[in-house]
Amino acid sequence: MKNKQEGFVKEIPKKSENISEWYTSVILKGELADYSPVRGCMVIRPYGYAVWENIQDYLNRRFKETGHKNGYFPMFIPESFLKKEAEHVEGFAPQVALVTKGGGENLTEPLVVRPTSESIICSMYAKWIRSYRDLPVLINQWCSVVRWEKTTRLFLRSAEFLWQEGHTVHRTPEEAEEETEKMLEVYREFAEDFLALPVLTGKKTDGEKFAGADHTYTIEALMPDGQALQSGTSHNLGSHFAKAFDIKFLDKDNVEKYPYQTSWGVSTRIIGAIIMTHGDDRGLAFPPKVAPVQVVIVPIFYGQKEAVLEKAAEIKRVLSEKFRVELDDRDEYKPGWKFNEWEMKGVPLRLEIGPKDIEKNQVVASSRIEEGKIQIPVDNLSESVEKLLDDIQNKFYARAKTFFDSHIFEASSREEIKEHIKAGRKGFYKTAWCGSEECAEKTAEETSTTSRCIERRETAGGLCAGCGKAAYKYLYFGRAY
Amino acid sequence: MKNKQEGFVKEIPKKSENISEWYTSVILKGELADYSPVRGCMVIRPYGYAVWENIQDYLNRRFKETGHKNGYFPMFIPESFLKKEAEHVEGFAPQVALVTKGGGENLTEPLVVRPTSESIICSMYAKWIRSYRDLPVLINQWCSVVRWEKTTRLFLRSAEFLWQEGHTVHRTPEEAEEETEKMLEVYREFAEDFLALPVLTGKKTDGEKFAGADHTYTIEALMPDGQALQSGTSHNLGSHFAKAFDIKFLDKDNVEKYPYQTSWGVSTRIIGAIIMTHGDDRGLAFPPKVAPVQVVIVPIFYGQKEAVLEKAAEIKRVLSEKFRVELDDRDEYKPGWKFNEWEMKGVPLRLEIGPKDIEKNQVVASSRIEEGKIQIPVDNLSESVEKLLDDIQNKFYARAKTFFDSHIFEASSREEIKEHIKAGRKGFYKTAWCGSEECAEKTAEETSTTSRCIERRETAGGLCAGCGKAAYKYLYFGRAY
Repeated sequence: MKNKQEGFVKEIPKKSENISEWYTSVILKGELADYSPVRGCMVIRPYGYAVWENIQDYLNRRFKETGHKNGYFPMFIPESFLKKEAEHVEGFAPQVALVTKGGGENLTEPLVVRPTSESIICSMYAKWIRSYRDLPVLINQWCSVVRWEKTTRLFLRSAEFLWQEGHTVHRTPEEAEEETEKMLEVYREFAEDFLALPVLTGKKTDGEKFAGADHTYTIEALMPDGQALQSGTSHNLGSHFAKAFDIKFLDKDNVEKYPYQTSWGVSTRIIGAIIMTHGDDRGLAFPPKVAPVQVVIVPIFYGQKEAVLEKAAEIKRVLSEKFRVELDDRDEYKPGWKFNEWEMKGVPLRLEIGPKDIEKNQVVASSRIEEGKIQIPVDNLSESVEKLLDDIQNKFYARAKTFFDSHIFEASSREEIKEHIKAGRKGFYKTAWCGSEECAEKTAEETSTTSRCIERRETAGGLCAGCGKAAYKYLYFGRAY
Repeated sequence: MKNKQEGFVKEIPKKSENISEWYTSVILKGELADYSPVRGCMVIRPYGYAVWENIQDYLNRRFKETGHKNGYFPMFIPESFLKKEAEHVEGFAPQVALVTKGGGENLTEPLVVRPTSESIICSMYAKWIRSYRDLPVLINQWCSVVRWEKTTRLFLRSAEFLWQEGHTVHRTPEEAEEETEKMLEVYREFAEDFLALPVLTGKKTDGEKFAGADHTYTIEALMPDGQALQSGTSHNLGSHFAKAFDIKFLDKDNVEKYPYQTSWGVSTRIIGAIIMTHGDDRGLAFPPKVAPVQVVIVPIFYGQKEAVLEKAAEIKRVLSEKFRVELDDRDEYKPGWKFNEWEMKGVPLRLEIGPKDIEKNQVVASSRIEEGKIQIPVDNLSESVEKLLDDIQNKFYARAKTFFDSHIFEASSREEIKEHIKAGRKGFYKTAWCGSEECAEKTAEETSTTSRCIERRETAGGLCAGCGKAAYKYLYFGRAY
């Protein structure tokens, strides 16, 4: 066992040389996830699932603060439901898994394994909503969904994935739009403050919006290979689904009306973004807030095993009150080997303690993101560790932000986008845009990119990079996962 | 809206008169769950899902304390996997849902939507486990599973339900048995201490064990109509699955061996047991520890709305630090109506506050389980509420335990069981038992009951109620959901 594992850090391909192989390798060796015998489906191992649990805790807190409650709707959807909203079925029908037999018999109507739950949820909302007093409805669900993808990749694209999907109903279009933007903002803060992932936020062009939405907002992250990753979306559904599913309410003025809806989701895909963005040649690297293990304590025995272990256990007890801590007290590995392993596992802060440290009432701390070691006193260790972790979190973000900002390339024409690409400048191409869908599609086609999002607040001056007419917004293009 | 709802308490059938109608009625009116348009599948509404979230929090804490971690395995299982363990496929094949199409194409091998995950998980364990150092493996997963039931009932039996399933692997049979019994004990404490549900604990007879297990332990609750409800099971799988899936490890002695496994689960079914056991003619009634709302504050305005609301909001703020609290500040309903509604919703503690109470610096408290009101000072309210809730929790258990104990009927022969049944004495029939499977089956058949469980610790003397031979254990029979 020991011999087999000793070389594992060396076995990881270099991120800078082959990011794709590196990515798969750190996920498998870091025991975040594994391939399953079922086509396109992955297994999320406990170390990877702990990342998801931290994400759930954060988002559940934010959803609750913004008035949402969790519920659960069936995973099966009658095929006819999917067809009720025309764009919706067009978008999802090609990639559904169908249950055709149950209890040994053929079903009279096949059941779709949910690819998303608007249709089944709207059928219930039609039953529950009668009056303006029943609004708003603010429900979220955590579940797994299935989309029969042709090519799959651990976390980034799998036939089954875990996610949360919020589904809300409002009295007015203004309230629905407010909700859509509010949840986009929750996602932006989640990405930037919690995961240390800088993102663009903005509206999708019509060609890229959710099937059935009036319009879609997105957070777009940038991977180290310059590819964009759509990491969370918030849809304003207008009254499309209300009309399709006959959801009506009696308003204050005694008139029956269709309400306005939103839906928004983040999936386990974002774990792929965390891995890609923060890892390095030594393996995984987790920002403290989302790290499965925030602090690892490695005891250095130097012949005083018992005393060192006792002190290390005491430190673990104290720190465990506030942090996620591991004490690596394994006998069969040397400290150096342990350092390598925990670095590969991406633990943001390591504390070493040996006989001399005990004498000096200190521990030796190393951060996953910087070289060098520092001594810190055992007194008030919790406070010191909190500061160190905050600092490490900020440095993760700063490093990612520097990369992000330096990979936004301005382009005043389609030719300029092509020049950027030809010169190896991969990232987001920021263009002034006239607002025409056709023009955006043509730019995407000619440059082999996709439009990623329309800048939310800034108004563009000058001329459209596509057609040369007057521009009114900035539109980002890029290549994407 | 107001008029429509005013009579809702009267609309609930009496529990004592028609428990089945009462059960459905309190679930629908209490907004715990609803029927869905998908055959046999239910929708869990936020108020019901909150019960499940409290259960998850409790069990996750207990699972973590006992060394388990959460993970996630695919919801699809190749049909051939289910067939690898002979008893397992026999038990589950008749009630599976089959995916036969994906992405518009027929699948070469149909996929089973998991009815339980032993087979898919064991296929991964075979890949991960190599050495005794990899053991024990202690993984739990929270997910939904599908069993194509013919007759379904909200919470108690549905085609799709939510559950947790623990799957562990051990080096020795002793460790596997220890784990199986440890998790049974976690379930017993969960039922009795957290849900206030008294249970029998014991082993299933072979005819009633899990398909593929060596033996199964169960917790069995007793519903008010005298029917038993299997509420959680813990299986010692022996090496059955290890052999079927070729899970082997190199032991300390350098010999390759099959490990020993366990699995154990509790599902949303247990929410049905909570509702059945604790509710009454006024509606739902939740023991404080699992209640979605533990304390409801109802302000009594008496012309001083602003001052009363201010005080009520302050009390809510204070109590919310420790408890799940609602403040019912709705204008459109009178206090009496609110009392009825929150009683129907099963909130264990109600606090009223009006102008006179503010003068006296007090609130008026009523418990869901007893008549009468008491005044309690606002000073140290949190401590007082904690004591009240503890007391209410204990009373919920005591009431259920009294019923439970008075519905265990001893029977020294099959005839005596029949006499109990004939006389309307519904419950558990406790018999001395010789240990023969055949004898137990014959007793069950002749009395139209099923064997529920073999008493764990007590040893029986005397003669077997079935065959009259020497008895060695007590075996409980009953009719079950």
